[in-house]
Amino acid sequence: MRREKNENEIIEHLIKRYAVPNRALKKGIGDDAAVWLPAGAREFWSVTTDMLVEEVDFRREWTTPRELGRKSIAVNLSDLGAMGAVPRFFTVSLGMPANVTNRWIREFYDGLTSCGGEHGAVLAGGDLSGADKITISITAFGESENRKVVYRSGGRPGDLLYVTGTPGKSAAGLKLLQRGILRSSSSPRLEALRAHRTPEPRCAIGRWLAQSGNIRCMMDVSDGLSADLPRMCAASGTNAEIFAEKIPVFAESALWGCDPLELALSGGEDYELLFAVPRAKKHFLKTLPPDFPPVTHIGTMLEGNAKVWITGAEGTRRPLPVRGFDHFRGKEI
Amino acid sequence: MRREKNENEIIEHLIKRYAVPNRALKKGIGDDAAVWLPAGAREFWSVTTDMLVEEVDFRREWTTPRELGRKSIAVNLSDLGAMGAVPRFFTVSLGMPANVTNRWIREFYDGLTSCGGEHGAVLAGGDLSGADKITISITAFGESENRKVVYRSGGRPGDLLYVTGTPGKSAAGLKLLQRGILRSSSSPRLEALRAHRTPEPRCAIGRWLAQSGNIRCMMDVSDGLSADLPRMCAASGTNAEIFAEKIPVFAESALWGCDPLELALSGGEDYELLFAVPRAKKHFLKTLPPDFPPVTHIGTMLEGNAKVWITGAEGTRRPLPVRGFDHFRGKEI
Repeated sequence: MRREKNENEIIEHLIKRYAVPNRALKKGIGDDAAVWLPAGAREFWSVTTDMLVEEVDFRREWTTPRELGRKSIAVNLSDLGAMGAVPRFFTVSLGMPANVTNRWIREFYDGLTSCGGEHGAVLAGGDLSGADKITISITAFGESENRKVVYRSGGRPGDLLYVTGTPGKSAAGLKLLQRGILRSSSSPRLEALRAHRTPEPRCAIGRWLAQSGNIRCMMDVSDGLSADLPRMCAASGTNAEIFAEKIPVFAESALWGCDPLELALSGGEDYELLFAVPRAKKHFLKTLPPDFPPVTHIGTMLEGNAKVWITGAEGTRRPLPVRGFDHFRGKEI
Repeated sequence: MRREKNENEIIEHLIKRYAVPNRALKKGIGDDAAVWLPAGAREFWSVTTDMLVEEVDFRREWTTPRELGRKSIAVNLSDLGAMGAVPRFFTVSLGMPANVTNRWIREFYDGLTSCGGEHGAVLAGGDLSGADKITISITAFGESENRKVVYRSGGRPGDLLYVTGTPGKSAAGLKLLQRGILRSSSSPRLEALRAHRTPEPRCAIGRWLAQSGNIRCMMDVSDGLSADLPRMCAASGTNAEIFAEKIPVFAESALWGCDPLELALSGGEDYELLFAVPRAKKHFLKTLPPDFPPVTHIGTMLEGNAKVWITGAEGTRRPLPVRGFDHFRGKEI
């Protein structure tokens, strides 16, 4: 018997079978991070883990070890940001083939620790192992502030949906790499390559949003809006409608033949934040600090159960097919 | 430049370069687990991580998925036991080739969660990824009891060294597997195979030892006494002497051509506990509950700095060469 299930189905199975009630855990499988309140502690702690595998998630020839180190921790910090948690520390397990040099290892850890340090997280330990392909497994820990934690669940019909930054920019960079364009002097190409190689985790804005008390639910967009928005809807018990014209796509990717909207919907690896705000509270976003990434209103939550619609410029509404990564990439469960 | 350093050297480099002082962390890189006190919490929390890679750490044809699941969590729980911590929960990242079946996945998670559950730890989340070889990365969390945590450091010259169980039994089982003996009706062979495939983490006795307040340092023996005892000595700033005749070897392994002492010293994967007790307090071990694994006095800590000697039956003392796993196996850092 081969594996016929996709990732969502395996995760649902795990939740059904193993998500035992546990007084220590406030949130187990099924969000960007697990959350618990250590007995007596002032704050909730969040923990998230991601595995990156060479030739599945990255290619050694497409990235420097320092960039790879930065990205490896960034994808975990992104999950903490999506909970509104403040990063504190992380552990790293590294599987390495024999041809990985000392210099590679040093630069990888330099990238890891410099990106971690910028967001307040220090290296706390880990594991080294032999492996055929470079395999990186990071677990990152964050602490809430004023006990405010934001989950994927909690959205309600009528809430407005927002996204940070420019979804699809990372996938536009990946398209360049896949065509052998590893560097460029053109500004949009550089920007796309950078978005793919060294995504910036949205910890500061995630924390700000959580502290505002004005958002109902949040997650990071790692598999594309078309894959991740239905997950937020499923957790919240809603449907959603998004507006094609409102999505802040990376229009410059059309210069190298991409469909910017398609990449925003299905590209993945953006590590932007997706969140819902009650309509009556949307004005707080006018106080967004100017050094934060832009935030764009892209749609609305509706009554229903995990169906997502996209409305075009001409006003026609069609179901949004899930075309995100279904090649069994790393996706937190 | 190829990687010329061995694992200990890489870990030392990581400690020197990245172990930044941090108020959140009580213990970072360099013990069986990292330890921190969440602000306001009643207890210390420990976290440990281990990576197991197919064909480096295990072979699919030598173990059932259920056994592999049990072992994967056991090696992490063993680290928690070595801190005296009570297991609470764990996350699992699993990299899988396409030929891994749904049934394999289910049985693997069943093994994981049943062994975890026996020791009080529940599955809290994780990650799924594609990979060429099955790659398992687990992070496990435990809580101290009465704030008692035992480190590798803290041993002093004159302290008595003890080990639980029968070091070398797991390696004796591995020798059988390497010869194609996957099952047996003989009791010692079965026992050795079981010790290798499903080691029992020493959480209960580790907790009991920590609570006694009578031990100075502890670690789990995962790479053989000859590799791990020097690590405990280095952390404690001592030397040590062990007595060949006192080591509780798995004598039956001689039946299939093994050198029982050699396996105890260099075999690895025993997941027994090694600990030091001040001579004046050794009598507390007489109150060891009868359902716990046996505990054997094997040597003494001496003045010095991380040298280990072995004394034979005839009284001759020779340096103990490190012959544990140096094939870059998983070793916590």
